Amino acid sequence: MSPIMSKSEAAAHIDSARIRQGRTWAELAEHLGAPLVWTTSALLGQHPLTTEQARSVCELLGLGEDVAEGLVRQPGRGTPAELMADPTIYRFTEALSVYGPALKALIHEEFGDGIMSAINFRIDFARRPDPDGDRVVITLDGKFLDYKW
Amino acid sequence: MSPIMSKSEAAAHIDSARIRQGRTWAELAEHLGAPLVWTTSALLGQHPLTTEQARSVCELLGLGEDVAEGLVRQPGRGTPAELMADPTIYRFTEALSVYGPALKALIHEEFGDGIMSAINFRIDFARRPDPDGDRVVITLDGKFLDYKW
Amino acid sequence: MSPIMSKSEAAAHIDSARIRQGRTWAELAEHLGAPLVWTTSALLGQHPLTTEQARSVCELLGLGEDVAEGLVRQPGRGTPAELMADPTIYRFTEALSVYGPALKALIHEEFGDGIMSAINFRIDFARRPDPDGDRVVITLDGKFLDYKW
Amino acid sequence: MSPIMSKSEAAAHIDSARIRQGRTWAELAEHLGAPLVWTTSALLGQHPLTTEQARSVCELLGLGEDVAEGLVRQPGRGTPAELMADPTIYRFTEALSVYGPALKALIHEEFGDGIMSAINFRIDFARRPDPDGDRVVITLDGKFLDYKW
Amino acid sequence: MSPIMSKSEAAAHIDSARIRQGRTWAELAEHLGAPLVWTTSALLGQHPLTTEQARSVCELLGLGEDVAEGLVRQPGRGTPAELMADPTIYRFTEALSVYGPALKALIHEEFGDGIMSAINFRIDFARRPDPDGDRVVITLDGKFLDYKW
Amino acid sequence: MSPIMSKSEAAAHIDSARIRQGRTWAELAEHLGAPLVWTTSALLGQHPLTTEQARSVCELLGLGEDVAEGLVRQPGRGTPAELMADPTIYRFTEALSVYGPALKALIHEEFGDGIMSAINFRIDFARRPDPDGDRVVITLDGKFLDYKW
Amino acid sequence: MSPIMSKSEAAAHIDSARIRQGRTWAELAEHLGAPLVWTTSALLGQHPLTTEQARSVCELLGLGEDVAEGLVRQPGRGTPAELMADPTIYRFTEALSVYGPALKALIHEEFGDGIMSAINFRIDFARRPDPDGDRVVITLDGKFLDYKW
Amino acid sequence: MSPIMSKSEAAAHIDSARIRQGRTWAELAEHLGAPLVWTTSALLGQHPLTTEQARSVCELLGLGEDVAEGLVRQPGRGTPAELMADPTIYRFTEALSVYGPALKALIHEEFGDGIMSAINFRIDFARRPDPDGDRVVITLDGKFLDYKW
Amino acid sequence: MSPIMSKSEAAAHIDSARIRQGRTWAELAEHLGAPLVWTTSALLGQHPLTTEQARSVCELLGLGEDVAEGLVRQPGRGTPAELMADPTIYRFTEALSVYGPALKALIHEEFGDGIMSAINFRIDFARRPDPDGDRVVITLDGKFLDYKW
Amino acid sequence: MSPIMSKSEAAAHIDSARIRQGRTWAELAEHLGAPLVWTTSALLGQHPLTTEQARSVCELLGLGEDVAEGLVRQPGRGTPAELMADPTIYRFTEALSVYGPALKALIHEEFGDGIMSAINFRIDFARRPDPDGDRVVITLDGKFLDYKW
Repeated sequence: MSPIMSKSEAAAHIDSARIRQGRTWAELAEHLGAPLVWTTSALLGQHPLTTEQARSVCELLGLGEDVAEGLVRQPGRGTPAELMADPTIYRFTEALSVYGPALKALIHEEFGDGIMSAINFRIDFARRPDPDGDRVVITLDGKFLDYKW
Repeated sequence: MSPIMSKSEAAAHIDSARIRQGRTWAELAEHLGAPLVWTTSALLGQHPLTTEQARSVCELLGLGEDVAEGLVRQPGRGTPAELMADPTIYRFTEALSVYGPALKALIHEEFGDGIMSAINFRIDFARRPDPDGDRVVITLDGKFLDYKW
Repeated sequence: MSPIMSKSEAAAHIDSARIRQGRTWAELAEHLGAPLVWTTSALLGQHPLTTEQARSVCELLGLGEDVAEGLVRQPGRGTPAELMADPTIYRFTEALSVYGPALKALIHEEFGDGIMSAINFRIDFARRPDPDGDRVVITLDGKFLDYKW
Repeated sequence: MSPIMSKSEAAAHIDSARIRQGRTWAELAEHLGAPLVWTTSALLGQHPLTTEQARSVCELLGLGEDVAEGLVRQPGRGTPAELMADPTIYRFTEALSVYGPALKALIHEEFGDGIMSAINFRIDFARRPDPDGDRVVITLDGKFLDYKW
Repeated sequence: MSPIMSKSEAAAHIDSARIRQGRTWAELAEHLGAPLVWTTSALLGQHPLTTEQARSVCELLGLGEDVAEGLVRQPGRGTPAELMADPTIYRFTEALSVYGPALKALIHEEFGDGIMSAINFRIDFARRPDPDGDRVVITLDGKFLDYKW
Repeated sequence: MSPIMSKSEAAAHIDSARIRQGRTWAELAEHLGAPLVWTTSALLGQHPLTTEQARSVCELLGLGEDVAEGLVRQPGRGTPAELMADPTIYRFTEALSVYGPALKALIHEEFGDGIMSAINFRIDFARRPDPDGDRVVITLDGKFLDYKW
Repeated sequence: MSPIMSKSEAAAHIDSARIRQGRTWAELAEHLGAPLVWTTSALLGQHPLTTEQARSVCELLGLGEDVAEGLVRQPGRGTPAELMADPTIYRFTEALSVYGPALKALIHEEFGDGIMSAINFRIDFARRPDPDGDRVVITLDGKFLDYKW
Repeated sequence: MSPIMSKSEAAAHIDSARIRQGRTWAELAEHLGAPLVWTTSALLGQHPLTTEQARSVCELLGLGEDVAEGLVRQPGRGTPAELMADPTIYRFTEALSVYGPALKALIHEEFGDGIMSAINFRIDFARRPDPDGDRVVITLDGKFLDYKW
Repeated sequence: MSPIMSKSEAAAHIDSARIRQGRTWAELAEHLGAPLVWTTSALLGQHPLTTEQARSVCELLGLGEDVAEGLVRQPGRGTPAELMADPTIYRFTEALSVYGPALKALIHEEFGDGIMSAINFRIDFARRPDPDGDRVVITLDGKFLDYKW
Repeated sequence: MSPIMSKSEAAAHIDSARIRQGRTWAELAEHLGAPLVWTTSALLGQHPLTTEQARSVCELLGLGEDVAEGLVRQPGRGTPAELMADPTIYRFTEALSVYGPALKALIHEEFGDGIMSAINFRIDFARRPDPDGDRVVITLDGKFLDYKW
C-alpha cells in the first residue's frame, strides 16, 4: 500500500481540478464555510483540514479519498525560497524589509516587550475600489504576546 | 570636511535622543504631522525626510545639522538579514512564508495577473482591545498593478 | 486524472516542437501578434497565455490540450540561480552590479524618490548593425512609480 | 604616509560635496564632457577616472588631491548584495529574473551562440513623458561576441 | 534485487500506516517498550532499530520486511533546513538563538570548560496542565563532557 | 552627545567587570532576584532590564550610567551564526536537528495543531549528580498555542 | 512526442558509450577534427554541436538521433557547485583564489582597464614531461577587451 | 607594542607607494629578481617574502620596517568572494565553470586518477600580439599528482 | 542502451548486498587485499576500482556487471553538505574548525610554507582499548608539499 | 575601564611577540609543559589557559596583564569560513569530504552506533621522514561515545 499523499501533491490535485472546473478559491471557501485566506492557504497545503472538510471539498471537485487523506495530514509549514522570489509574493517581503524594524519599534512602544502572534492570528484580504486604481488591502491581526517568564 | 552622516548613524542619534528625552514615536509623528509607521520608518533610515522635516525633528530632540543632513539623504532601503531574525520581526516573515502563496493566488483571482505595489503603498498600525488579550493589527494597503506590457 | 502540466514542462514541449519544426521565436510572436520578448518569455513559462493564445500556438506546433493547459496557468515567476550563471545571462547581471547604483542615483535625481516599475514595463530586443561588429540593443521601459503613502 | 583612499571613500566625499553644493550628476557629467551614466557610475567608484578628470571634478567640488587619487585608481567592480536589495535597484534584478532566459534565447536566435558584451557596452538613461505617467527608459547597448575558439 | 529502502521511505510507510490505523506515537512506544521521544525519532528515521524492534513494529502496522530492513539500517542523522523552518520546530531554534550563549556561559560556570553531550543524552516530552493554558515541557538531559586532552 | 551604548557593548562591560571581580552569573541573578537563565541572557543582551535592575547591577559591578542605559534598551534578539558554531552551543542545534521533527509530531499528537511558545516561555538550568558523570539538565517550558484563526 | 533530450542526458550517453567502446576523448576530437578541450567540453554539454558533428559522433559511438538532437541544442552553460568541489577541479578554483587579484593587476598594467574575454577564448591542455614528475600545462588564451563606452 | 601589520594592510601600503612613485609590478618583480605573477601575488599578500625580499622592496618604495614585517609573515591565502565578482577576475571563474569538467576528464585520460598540483605550480602571464586584437595568455603549469595511498 | 550506473547507485547496491549478506567492510577489504579505509571509501563511490577489483567484489556479493561498471568509473569526489551534518561526521568538521589554524601554524613551523597533500595521502582507522572507554584513532598521513614555483 | 581583551586580539599579540622574538610554538609548548597542538591552538584563541599558564607565557614574551586576561577567558570556539579556505587548512576539509562517510561507516561497524568525541579528544602532529619526501602525520584520538539514552 502506498504512503499517504504529500500535502503538495494533494494541493496540485486541488488546484488542477479547481481550474478545470472553473471554480474560484472564494467558492471553495464558501463551500467550506471557512475564511477565504485560511481556505486558500489550507488547500495549498499550509493547514490541516478536518476529515469532513477534506472529504467535502474533494467531493465537490470530484477527487478521491487519496487526495482527502493528504489534505488532512499535518503539514510541514513554509514556502521554499525560490517561490518566495515570485514578484507578487516578493513585494510583501520587500515591504517587510523596509517596515519591519518600524513595526517592531511600534509594537514595543504600544504593547511593551513582546510579539504579534503568528499562531493566534488571522489574515484578511480585500479589494478596495479607488478612482486612481483599486487597491489590495491585507490585514494582519494577531494577539500580542508579551515576553513572560 | 567629513562626508554626510549615514542614515543608520543619523537613526542612532534620533533613537538615543528620543529615549533620553522620553519621547514616543507617536509624538514624533504628531510633531511632523506625518503617519505613524511612515515617520518611524523614515527616522529609522528607510525614507528620506524633507529638509524642513529633518530640521524640525532635530530641533525638537536637540540634535544638530549633521544629523539633519543624514535624515534628508536618499536611503539604500532594506534591513540586514540578522536583524530580520529578531522574534518580533520574524513573526511577519513566518506569516508570509505560510500565507504568501495564498495571497498571490487571491490577488490573481480577484485582480488578474499582477502585484500589490510596495511603492504606492501604506501600512498602518493599531491596537485592538480584546478580552482575550489585545491584538496587533497591521494593515497593508497597496495599489494593484497589473502586468501591462 | 493527472494534475495540470507545470509551466516548465509545457515550456519544454514548446521549445522542443519549435526546434524540430525549425520555427523561430519571432515566427511564434508573429503568429500570436504579440511582442517578441513577451512571447518568448511567456512561452518559456514566465507569463500566462490566454486560452486562445495557448491553443493557437499549440495548434501551430502540433501539441495537445495538455500543453495548452500548462501555458494558461498562472506562473510562479523567476529563474533558478544556476541558470542565471549562464554566460549569456550573466552579462546582464554583471552590468547591473556595475551600473545599478548609478541607475538608482539617476532615477532619484530625475524623478524623485521611487522606482522604475517592473510590472508596467516592457523590454525590447534589437540588432543594430555596426561596422565594428553588430550590437545587441535591449531597451527597458518602465513607468516611474514614486513612493506615495 | 597613509595608503591611497579607497574608491568607496572617495565616492562618499564626492557624493557629500555634490549634495552640499546642490549639484546634480548631470552637471558633473557635463563638466567632464562624459556620458551621464558613465560619469555617475565612475564617481560612485565603478570606473577609473583619468588624472585630469579626477582633478577637474575635485576642483569643481572643492575636494583635495587625496580624493582625486582615489578616483583615479583601478576599481574592484561590483556592488555588495545588501545594496542590490534596495527596491529601486531590485526591480532591475527582478526584470532580469523574469526576462533573462528570453533574452538569451533571442540573442542565440538572432546572432548565434554568444553573448552581449558587458565591456564593449554602454547604458543610457532617459525620461520619456507619458500621459499615464512618465517612464524610465534604460538602453543597454553591447557588442555581440560569438563563441570563437 | 533492489537496494534496501531508505530511512525516509521507511518512515513514510510507518507514518502512513500509523495514521490509517489510528495509532498514536505513544502506542508505538509502548508497544516497543521504549521511551516516547526516542521511539518517535527512530521511526522518523533518526535512529537505527534493532531487527526485533523493526519487525515488531512492522507486524503491528501490517508492513513488510522491506520496511523493516530500512528501519534497521544506520541513519545519516539530521533534518533538512526547509523542514526546520516549520513554525512548530522553529520556536526551538529561536529559543536557542536567544538563550544559547546564556546556556554556554552557565555550563562553563557550573561545570567548567566543556559541553552537554548530545549522544549520551535523552530528551523527554510532557504536558503540564496550567490554568492559563497547558504547557509543553521538554527536558534535555545530557552528560557533561569536559575538554580533556 | 554620543548615542546610547549598544546591547553588545554593554554586555562586554558587564562580563568583563564580572570576571575581574570574580562574580558568578548566579550571584548576579540572586542580586537581581531574577531567574538564573533569564538574568544571564538579559545581561548578555537578549532581554531589556528595567532601569532599576540595570542601575542595581551596574552599581554592584562598579559600572556607570552609560552601561545601564544600554542594558535598558530594547534588544534586537538573536545570536550571529558564527557564535552558534561554538561546540557548547552547537550540541543544542544538533539535538534539535535530530529530535525536532519528533517533538513536532508529539506536540501535534498531544495538543493538536500548534506550537510551544518561545515568548510565554521559560528555560531552566540545573546540574544533576550522576555516578557515571554529572549531567546538564535543561528544561524548556512554554505555553502551548494552537493555530487559532 | 517527448521533449528533446537535455544536454546532460546526452552527455551521459556519450560518456557511457565512449567508456564501453574504449575510446578516448582525444579520438573523438580527432574524429570531429576539432580541438581537444573544445570537443570534450562540448560533448559534456557545454557547447552546441552542429548537426553534422552531432550525427558524426553518434554514428561513431552507435547512438541514435535522440542523442544527436540533445548535442545540437543550445546549452545553459556552467557546472553545479557540488561538482566544482571535486579535488581535480577544485585545484583550479584554489589557484584562481590565490592568483586572481594578481592577474587582474597585471592585465590592467599591461593592457589597461579591461578583461580577458572568456568568449573569444581558447584553452589548451598538454602534458609536459619532467624528470621530477610530468606536468599538466593548461593555457588560457583570450582576447583582451577594454572597457569601451 | 602593536601587533605585526596584517598582510592586507601591508599590501595596501605597497600598492599605494607603487602608484604614487609610478612603478609597475614588472619593475618590482625585476627588482626582486622573481617571477612576475609570483611577485605581484606575494606583494598583494598571497605569499610570504623572505626578510631580504621584504626589506629590499620596502627600501625601494620608501616604506618602513612595519610594512616589511607584514610582508614576511605567513599568509592566510585566498580572496574574499566579493572581490572575485570583479569582471576582470570573474572571467576566469566563468571559464572554469565551463571547462572545469573537461579539464578533469582530460587529466584523468592522459595521466590517470589524480590532480594538477596548485602548490608545485607556476602561472605565467603574457601579451600576445594579434591583428584582431592582442590577447591575454595565461599558462598554468602544475605537477601531476596521482592518488597514491 | 542505458548509461553506465552512477557511483552513488553502485554504492547503494554494494551496501545493500553487504548488509543482507552480513559482510563487514573489513571482509570486503580483505577480499580485495586493499587497505580498510580506502576500500570502504572506494565502495562508497569516492575512488575508482580497477575492473578486476570491481568484478571481484561484485562476484562476492552476487551483483552484476552493471554495478561493476559503476564502480570502475572515475568519480566526482566529495560529499553533499547535508550528509556532512550527520553527528558522526560532524565531529571531524568541528575538530578541524577548532584545530585547523593550529595545524597550519605547525606545518609552517616544521616544514616551511606548504601543505599536507590530500592526494599522496593515506588515512588509517583503529580501535584503541582504554579502561576509560575505547578510543577511535584516525591517522592522517600525507606528503608535505612546499610552495614551489 | 575597558573590557577584557578578546581572544583574537590576545592571539594577535602572542603571535606577533613570538615572531619578533624568534620563538617557535614548540618552545612555547615546552615552556608551558603542555602538548604541542593544544598549546598552539590555545594561544590562537581556541582554549582557555589557566591564569598561571597565561601569566607564564606573557612573561616569557614580554606581554602585559591585559593579554593574559584575554588568554584566560572562555573562548567562542571555531574558525571563520574564509580562513578555512586557506590551502593548508583546506586539504583537511577535502580529506574529510572524501573520507568522512567511510569513517562513519567504520566507526559504526567497529564500535556500534555512536561517534568519536571531539571533546575527550587529542590531536598530535609529527613529521615522518620519508625518502620520497617527508610526511605530515596527524593523529586524531577521541573516545568513542555510543548513543545512549
